[in-house]
Amino acid sequence: MKLVVVGGDAAGMSAASQARKRQGPDELQIVAFERGHFTSYSACGIPYWIGGAVKDRDALIARRPHEFHDAGITVHTRHEVTGIDLAAREVVVRDLDGGGERREGFDHLMYATGALPVTPDWARIDGEGVFGVQTLDDGTAIHAWLERDPQPRRAVVIGGGYVGVEMAEAMVRRGLAVTLLEKSAQPMATVDPDMGERVREAICGLGIEVRTNTHVTGLETTDGRISAVVTPDGPLPADIVVLGLGVRPNTALAVRSGIPVGVTGGLRTDLRMRVVGPQGHLDGIWAAGDCVQTVHRVSGQPVHIPLGTHANKQGRVAGINIGGGYATFPGVIGTGVTKVCELEVARTGLTEKEAARAGFAFVTASVESTSRAGYYPGASTMVVKLIAEKRTGMLLGAQIVGREEAAKRIDALAIAVWNRMTVEEMTALDLSYAPPFSPVWDPVLIAARKATDAVHAAG
Amino acid sequence: MKLVVVGGDAAGMSAASQARKRQGPDELQIVAFERGHFTSYSACGIPYWIGGAVKDRDALIARRPHEFHDAGITVHTRHEVTGIDLAAREVVVRDLDGGGERREGFDHLMYATGALPVTPDWARIDGEGVFGVQTLDDGTAIHAWLERDPQPRRAVVIGGGYVGVEMAEAMVRRGLAVTLLEKSAQPMATVDPDMGERVREAICGLGIEVRTNTHVTGLETTDGRISAVVTPDGPLPADIVVLGLGVRPNTALAVRSGIPVGVTGGLRTDLRMRVVGPQGHLDGIWAAGDCVQTVHRVSGQPVHIPLGTHANKQGRVAGINIGGGYATFPGVIGTGVTKVCELEVARTGLTEKEAARAGFAFVTASVESTSRAGYYPGASTMVVKLIAEKRTGMLLGAQIVGREEAAKRIDALAIAVWNRMTVEEMTALDLSYAPPFSPVWDPVLIAARKATDAVHAAG
Repeated sequence: MKLVVVGGDAAGMSAASQARKRQGPDELQIVAFERGHFTSYSACGIPYWIGGAVKDRDALIARRPHEFHDAGITVHTRHEVTGIDLAAREVVVRDLDGGGERREGFDHLMYATGALPVTPDWARIDGEGVFGVQTLDDGTAIHAWLERDPQPRRAVVIGGGYVGVEMAEAMVRRGLAVTLLEKSAQPMATVDPDMGERVREAICGLGIEVRTNTHVTGLETTDGRISAVVTPDGPLPADIVVLGLGVRPNTALAVRSGIPVGVTGGLRTDLRMRVVGPQGHLDGIWAAGDCVQTVHRVSGQPVHIPLGTHANKQGRVAGINIGGGYATFPGVIGTGVTKVCELEVARTGLTEKEAARAGFAFVTASVESTSRAGYYPGASTMVVKLIAEKRTGMLLGAQIVGREEAAKRIDALAIAVWNRMTVEEMTALDLSYAPPFSPVWDPVLIAARKATDAVHAAG
Repeated sequence: MKLVVVGGDAAGMSAASQARKRQGPDELQIVAFERGHFTSYSACGIPYWIGGAVKDRDALIARRPHEFHDAGITVHTRHEVTGIDLAAREVVVRDLDGGGERREGFDHLMYATGALPVTPDWARIDGEGVFGVQTLDDGTAIHAWLERDPQPRRAVVIGGGYVGVEMAEAMVRRGLAVTLLEKSAQPMATVDPDMGERVREAICGLGIEVRTNTHVTGLETTDGRISAVVTPDGPLPADIVVLGLGVRPNTALAVRSGIPVGVTGGLRTDLRMRVVGPQGHLDGIWAAGDCVQTVHRVSGQPVHIPLGTHANKQGRVAGINIGGGYATFPGVIGTGVTKVCELEVARTGLTEKEAARAGFAFVTASVESTSRAGYYPGASTMVVKLIAEKRTGMLLGAQIVGREEAAKRIDALAIAVWNRMTVEEMTALDLSYAPPFSPVWDPVLIAARKATDAVHAAG
C-alpha cells in the first residue's frame, strides 16, 4: 500500500507520522510532496522570529525532511502536486526546481494543502514588498525584505486579526513605524467590541497607529516596489505591506479533481477525516488542516478555523485511521489566544455576534478581578466575560483579557463549553486556589456567579 | 426571624452576607459570634505575611466587623459560643474579654467553627513557642514570636503538607535555619511519590533541611520556652516549632448539643448545607466550611478537605438558602495547588493511592513538556500526570509539577474530572494555542494521548 501526502506541514506530516507508527515501510510506503522549502514548522511562530523574540528561524522547524526519511517517510520539498486523478488513483507532481512533471500512484491520499492569504484584487500588484504570512517561505521573504539595504522604515499592516496584530507588534519591535488598518470598528474582531477595545488600547500603547473603519482601495509602487497604501483619507507611505486579511482554504487542486467544497470553502470530511464527495465519503481520500471545514460544537454549524492545533489533531486522526486504527475528530469550539505586548487575549465558544447568528438568545456577564489574591505581589487585573444561553444557562462562550496568567484560564472555560455546562453548575466547580494563583473566588467562578444571576434575572 | 452565626470567618460570614443580600434587617436579624479578633480573613495568606511577601497583616482581612455592621450584620469578636440548646433554640455565649455569659435565641443557626490544628499529646507542652497555623490569631502569635528579642534562629516545622511547606519557606525567607520533619517517605503526600520527589528537591534547594520517615516523640522546653524537638535520631534544637500536621473539624460544640459527626469527623450536611442529624436534616441548623464533611464526586466517599475555597462556596450556598433562595453544594473533587519557591504543584481528582482505596483499577501516564512553545523565550519544563480508570478511560485524577504558568492548568483538568471525561475524548479538546502560551500540543493534550494509549494497552 502507498500513501501520498500533499502538503508537508502540520496536518500532512502528522498524518504521515501516525500512519508510520502503525504500519512499517513494508506495509505502507509513504511519500510526501511539499511545494515550499520546509516541513513541519510552526507558522504561528513567524511573528516572534520577525520580532526578534525567537532568534533563529530554524527553531520554528519541528522536523526536517531528512528526519522524516530516517523514519521511513520520503519527503520531496519544492514539489507541487498539480493534479489528482481520482479514477486512476494518481497525482501529477511538478519539480519546482529541477523542472519536469511525473505521475505518482497512491492507495491513500492525504490532502493537506493548508490555506492561502486572502488577497483582494487591489493587492495583486506588479511589484515587491507586499506579503502574506502563511508559510515559512512567506516568513523568510518578509525577514529578508526587512533586512535589505536600505532597511524599510514604514510598515502598514492591513487587517487587525491575530496575524495582523502579531505582525504589527513584531515590526514595532524591529523599530519600524507601523500603521494597522482595520476595516471594521475595532481590531481583534475575534472578540466582542467591549473586549476588543482593551486590545486597541494595548496596541496603541506599543506605539502602533491604529486606523479602524478604514477600507484600503489600492497599493502604489515606485520602481517596482511598494511605496504607499491608498485609503479614502489619502495615501499612506509604506516600505512594506503585510496582509492580515485572513486566509481561505487552499482547495483549487481538489476542486479541479472533482471534489466539491463545503459552504465555508473548505473541504468536507467525516469524523475520521475522510473527504466527503457528492455521494458520501471517498475511500482512501483524506484531508486535514487549514484546507478543511469542521463543525462548531456549540452552533452546530460548519466553520473554517485555520489553526495549527486543529491541523495537528486532525492530521493525527487521519494518520491513525490510514494506519488501520480508529480515531475521530469531533469538531471545535472556537478557542483562540494571543498576546499583544503584555496583554493576553483569549476566547472560546461563541462571541455575542456568533451566538446571535447561530440563533441563540443569551445573557452576558463581565467581571473584573485579579490573577492572584489581591494582597499577593504581582496580582494583575483581568476581565472575564461569559455568554450563557437564556433559560438553560448553558455556557455558550467566554472571553478573557488580562495580563500575566490570565489567558490560559480560557482552557478551563473551553472544557466547560465542551461539556455543555450551565453557568450555575460552574459556580460550584472545584478550581484550584492558593494566594499566588487566584483570589479565593477565581475570576472564572465570580463570572459564573454573575452570569447565573443574569440568567435568573432574564427568566 | 433571627440568624445566629457561630464563627466569623469565610463560611460563616459568606452565609451571613448572602442571607442579608436576600433579606433586609426587618425580615432577618443577623448576629455573628467569633471567638478570635478577626473576621473574614485569608488564613491561606498567613505564610506569605510571615515570609514577607505580604507586608501588612491587615491586607489579609477581607472585611472587618464594622463593615459588617454597616451592612446590617452584628458581629461580636472575642465572643465564644459555648453551648447550643437545639430544643430551646438558644446558644450560650461567653464574652472572652468582658467576661460573663448570656443566652441568645435563634431561628436559624449557622455553624461555622472551622477546624483545629492536629496537636498530638507530645505537642501539648507547658511552654511557649509551639504554634499551629489555623487562624489569623495564630498567625499574629507566630509573627510576634519571630519578632521577639532575641529573634528565634532555628525553626522546626513538623509535617510536610501544604501548610508545613509554605511555613518552612516563609521562615527561610526570614533568615531562619529551618528543618522540616515528615513522618512519611516524602513531603507533600497530597501528590503521588513520583511528583512529591520533585517537591522535595525544590524544598531542599531553598536551603530547608528535609527529614522524612521521622517520627517526633516529644518537645523539650527551657525556661518555659521551646528548646528542642525530640526524634529517634536525637533532639533537634528549636527556637520555634510550627505544627503542620493537618487539621480536624472543630465539632465539639455541636457534638455536645447532640449532633453526630460523620466518618471523617466533620458534620454531615445535605446538599443545601442543612446539618443532618440522626433523623435527617435539622430545620434551620446549617453548617459550612472546615467543620463539615462533603462528598468526593469521583470516589463517592465522604471527605474532609478544609480549604477556604470550599468554605466560601458552602457558606454562600447556606446563606442563599437561609435567605429563602435555592442553592446546592454538589461536593468536591480534591483540587489543590501550592507554590514552593518557583515550583508549582497542583492536583485534582484522586491520587494513585486514593484511587486504589476507592476501588478503582487504573492506568497512569506522565509526560514532560513545556509551558510555552519550545522555541519561545521563557518556556519551562512541566510534568503532567494523569490517572484514568481501566477499561472506561475515565479521568480519575491529575497532577502537575512545573514552574511559571504550569499549575493553573490543573483547572482545565479539574473540569474534565468534574465532567467525567475520558482521556480519549480529552485528546480532541479545543484548548488554546499560541507560542507564548503552550506548545501546539498543550501538555494536557499530550498527557491525554499517552493516557489513552495506556488505557488501550491495558485492555
